[in-house]
Amino acid sequence: MNKNYPSRLLEDAVDAISSLPGVGKRSALRLALHLLKQPQENVHHFTASINALRDEVKYCRECRMIADEHLCSICADRSRDHNTICVVESVRDVMSIENTGQYRGVYHVLGGIISPINGVSPSDLNIRDLVQRVKKLVEEGNDAEVIFALNGDVEGETTAFYIYRQISGTGVRVSSLARGLGFGDDLEYADELTLGRSIVNRQEFRP
Amino acid sequence: MNKNYPSRLLEDAVDAISSLPGVGKRSALRLALHLLKQPQENVHHFTASINALRDEVKYCRECRMIADEHLCSICADRSRDHNTICVVESVRDVMSIENTGQYRGVYHVLGGIISPINGVSPSDLNIRDLVQRVKKLVEEGNDAEVIFALNGDVEGETTAFYIYRQISGTGVRVSSLARGLGFGDDLEYADELTLGRSIVNRQEFRP
Repeated sequence: MNKNYPSRLLEDAVDAISSLPGVGKRSALRLALHLLKQPQENVHHFTASINALRDEVKYCRECRMIADEHLCSICADRSRDHNTICVVESVRDVMSIENTGQYRGVYHVLGGIISPINGVSPSDLNIRDLVQRVKKLVEEGNDAEVIFALNGDVEGETTAFYIYRQISGTGVRVSSLARGLGFGDDLEYADELTLGRSIVNRQEFRP
Repeated sequence: MNKNYPSRLLEDAVDAISSLPGVGKRSALRLALHLLKQPQENVHHFTASINALRDEVKYCRECRMIADEHLCSICADRSRDHNTICVVESVRDVMSIENTGQYRGVYHVLGGIISPINGVSPSDLNIRDLVQRVKKLVEEGNDAEVIFALNGDVEGETTAFYIYRQISGTGVRVSSLARGLGFGDDLEYADELTLGRSIVNRQEFRP
């Protein structure tokens, strides 16, 4: 017997589960023993749904969002504003913005962020597609806008600036998410950078 | 599109993953998107190892521990003391005690604990097998011992007492885990019940 596991099958499953981010060996053992107690068909449904996700999911040919068809439901929706493209790092960012219910344009998912330290260069991201989408919109005479919805860290700023240099010549309007105090935030607990920026970039008071 | 998910496949996978204990919808989404980014063969290995655990694992015919064979590696080990049976609730308890390296007997896994509130009655547990094992050991003239290693709550005590009534007539020796202050515990922070019991059940001082 392995010193720690009574069964090779259990050890293999624990190894696999603990390869997930944020799941340690102890949690993985708990989850494996939980699955072992479930009806066999439930466990098969569990693994089949994960295999189906990995094997069958598609990526929208326009915006690279995950989708069940070749065009995602947002890009396929003609009632949305296809001249406004919101540039995000990941699928999750699209879901977060959609959940606000405040945006009626379309998206472009970069699939990551420029990060030399993590070995991610511009060519690893869906930037060329974005530049072509923007050029096409402008050439067709549309009043196009690109909104950067990237994290406010160095990597996010770098990525936005890199893309900006490639599209600014086209005449497209470019904006980025408003930065400032969160709604309901206490001044007392705001960090100095955010508070300072929110004074410099103060907005017209619209009661 | 579903209001929250861009893909039915993603939604199904998130539903499946969030059915695990202690995993919410948000964590499940994070894990699903992580799996989506892994190489296909890694995801298939992940799901195959879970299916293999559920489909192929065996339960030891002696002690009901999970095993790769019909006899677990502990029961198959002739160098262990087969006259001493440690009674535990679950597979995990066997692993915990094995990890101490302090026990050379064998085990009996009940597969749960008597709990009317959770609908678990004695007939749902591997108690009858245990009684037969004990009777057989005694009838063969062995100096047998049963050690209760159950949780120190009402359900653990109830289960131990229920089993005790069934085996005490055989003449088997019966013991239970020592209860008292943990090694390194501060008296100041010990709960009153534990501290009180540890005075009443004080041990001979062996320096």
